[in-house]
Amino acid sequence: MTPVSPVDPSPGPATVAIIGTGLIGTSIALALRERGSSVWLADQDPAAARLAAQLGAGDLLPETDRGVTADVAVIAVPPDAVADTLAAAQERGLARYYTDVASVKQLPVAQARDRGCDLASYVPGHPLAGREKHGPAAARADLFLGRSWALCPTPETSDEATATITSLVRACGAVPVRTDAAAHDRWVALVSHAPHLVAAAMAARLEEAPAEALDLAGQGLRDVTRVAAGEVGLWTQILAANAAPVAEVLAAVAADLAEAARLLAQEADGGGPKGVAGLLDRGQAGVARIPGKHGGELREFALVQVVIPDRPGELTRLFDAAGAAGVNIEDVRIEHSPGLPVGVAELSVRPAEADTLLDALEAGGWPVRR
Amino acid sequence: MTPVSPVDPSPGPATVAIIGTGLIGTSIALALRERGSSVWLADQDPAAARLAAQLGAGDLLPETDRGVTADVAVIAVPPDAVADTLAAAQERGLARYYTDVASVKQLPVAQARDRGCDLASYVPGHPLAGREKHGPAAARADLFLGRSWALCPTPETSDEATATITSLVRACGAVPVRTDAAAHDRWVALVSHAPHLVAAAMAARLEEAPAEALDLAGQGLRDVTRVAAGEVGLWTQILAANAAPVAEVLAAVAADLAEAARLLAQEADGGGPKGVAGLLDRGQAGVARIPGKHGGELREFALVQVVIPDRPGELTRLFDAAGAAGVNIEDVRIEHSPGLPVGVAELSVRPAEADTLLDALEAGGWPVRR
Repeated sequence: MTPVSPVDPSPGPATVAIIGTGLIGTSIALALRERGSSVWLADQDPAAARLAAQLGAGDLLPETDRGVTADVAVIAVPPDAVADTLAAAQERGLARYYTDVASVKQLPVAQARDRGCDLASYVPGHPLAGREKHGPAAARADLFLGRSWALCPTPETSDEATATITSLVRACGAVPVRTDAAAHDRWVALVSHAPHLVAAAMAARLEEAPAEALDLAGQGLRDVTRVAAGEVGLWTQILAANAAPVAEVLAAVAADLAEAARLLAQEADGGGPKGVAGLLDRGQAGVARIPGKHGGELREFALVQVVIPDRPGELTRLFDAAGAAGVNIEDVRIEHSPGLPVGVAELSVRPAEADTLLDALEAGGWPVRR
Repeated sequence: MTPVSPVDPSPGPATVAIIGTGLIGTSIALALRERGSSVWLADQDPAAARLAAQLGAGDLLPETDRGVTADVAVIAVPPDAVADTLAAAQERGLARYYTDVASVKQLPVAQARDRGCDLASYVPGHPLAGREKHGPAAARADLFLGRSWALCPTPETSDEATATITSLVRACGAVPVRTDAAAHDRWVALVSHAPHLVAAAMAARLEEAPAEALDLAGQGLRDVTRVAAGEVGLWTQILAANAAPVAEVLAAVAADLAEAARLLAQEADGGGPKGVAGLLDRGQAGVARIPGKHGGELREFALVQVVIPDRPGELTRLFDAAGAAGVNIEDVRIEHSPGLPVGVAELSVRPAEADTLLDALEAGGWPVRR
């Protein structure tokens, strides 16, 4: 498995057919349209394809026209449906190359082989991106920016197919990561599928909780449980298709939690301090190993904090000052509470430009925190 | 337990002494300074107090001057140290009223009672806010904006003390939530302490994971495990002080995960579909019960998405257009990838102003998504 270098500004394939206009399919369509691709849209549910088209994701794929040949067809359907959809698309001669986006890879590859699909033109794929909302209306052109996107060519897959799908991934702003289907499934069990069930098990405790308890919920609880809001039907299918490796991770997490519960219960019973520091230490070490949002390869930004009055025009003045200093704001986050007259703007800039910006803002009378 | 109405723009206490200038103490100091309070700073580690003062959090509390009497002293030290610190401050006559910020409430209250502290002037408190970073340098004036802040007056606590500490909480931008110490500890076991260990147990699985697996990490894994980066020593103390209720929640989560592992393992062994849909359903129902970031009481914003070129001056132009239309941008989030020539700005505005902004931006030639 080799993470490939960061985002490449080259355009994607000229024409792309998206089969399945849910969150992922429509987001791919929107991203590719912004890079100049022509996009055809189809979905088993014609209303979903129409909505995606209305959102600007592309044009409806003519149902009867067998003359359409796209450079790439993206099969964006649930794992169980990938092989049948791929077989139908290949039979129709819909595209030169094919990829899918299912969260497991061994199952659709095995089924595609059983169905007699052409594997030379098929590059199994999986973008590591998503939202809790689903359907075309939740789609975003920027869903894949800076995210990993696994590509798992089969032994039969041609180099041309892999190169073309790699260019599609880069055009979506994602970072292609080459691996094989078995390794992919083992790794996503650990970094995606098991965490989903862990979040669900914690969230399940809230189902019967008194409202008073939930009044005390902070950002920590929201983050730990966020993914558990995902689509149940899709996740049941994903977990079933990757059951053994997920079960292994879950059993280990369950054992650690049961042991922590035992130690704490003994401590509460006056058994002297047992401590769960060991588990906390291991957790801290584990978190430290997760790469940053954009991976380790992309640049880090410096943060500049500025206090701003909460009224129209103040952000303009702030960005004016940054622009006049020739500094590009890479990202900005504003935190304020409706009742308060001020907020704090947190500006991300290239580290080399932070001092320039701080000087310019201070000269302009902005209260900055160095 | 009664959530009190949203943020109140009234000022906080005129003079406040902060004992313990870590993340929470220094953040309270910064927030109160912005609202016009005079702040004295002290810490067992003089370097930490000096750093907080250099960050603009206030002035150093004179060690020998017994003439200082603040309106409020905030005891921002670990749970085990609250009672001793409170006793010493009261002996010195440091303030008229006292509060603390420990994440457990029964332990410090019991210890304060044992130590013979004056409970009439003491309002036990707990802001439900934090960061993974710690120490004064990680402090933020906006740390408490929109967050819940539990206040647990003892039977002896005077109404004047409670009213004064409530005004301090509001001055920090937080939402005061009245409860008692026993209920507080039971609820935070569920919404904060157990989730912390659940995140740690998941993160612990990453400690020995191959780097290839971590290349596939997405935002879901980051969110589920984020809190596990917290300070181990402090959390060990918090968990020990709330051991029984935390153990109960953890045992239930562990049992659900062990059962999910068993069902998935059977399914992998060809035992037919067992399904973990039940747990996923319960998790989804649990997440749905968590109130939004600002609670249900504060207004929701409408999102307006605009595509922007990634170069200096574009954000200024965007905010100029919003300002010219008389629309206040409440929040903004920008997502783009360094290699791409465009990004997407997501502007939060009052729902009634969304159409005005969309019209104005479209008239100005901005590509907006309606």
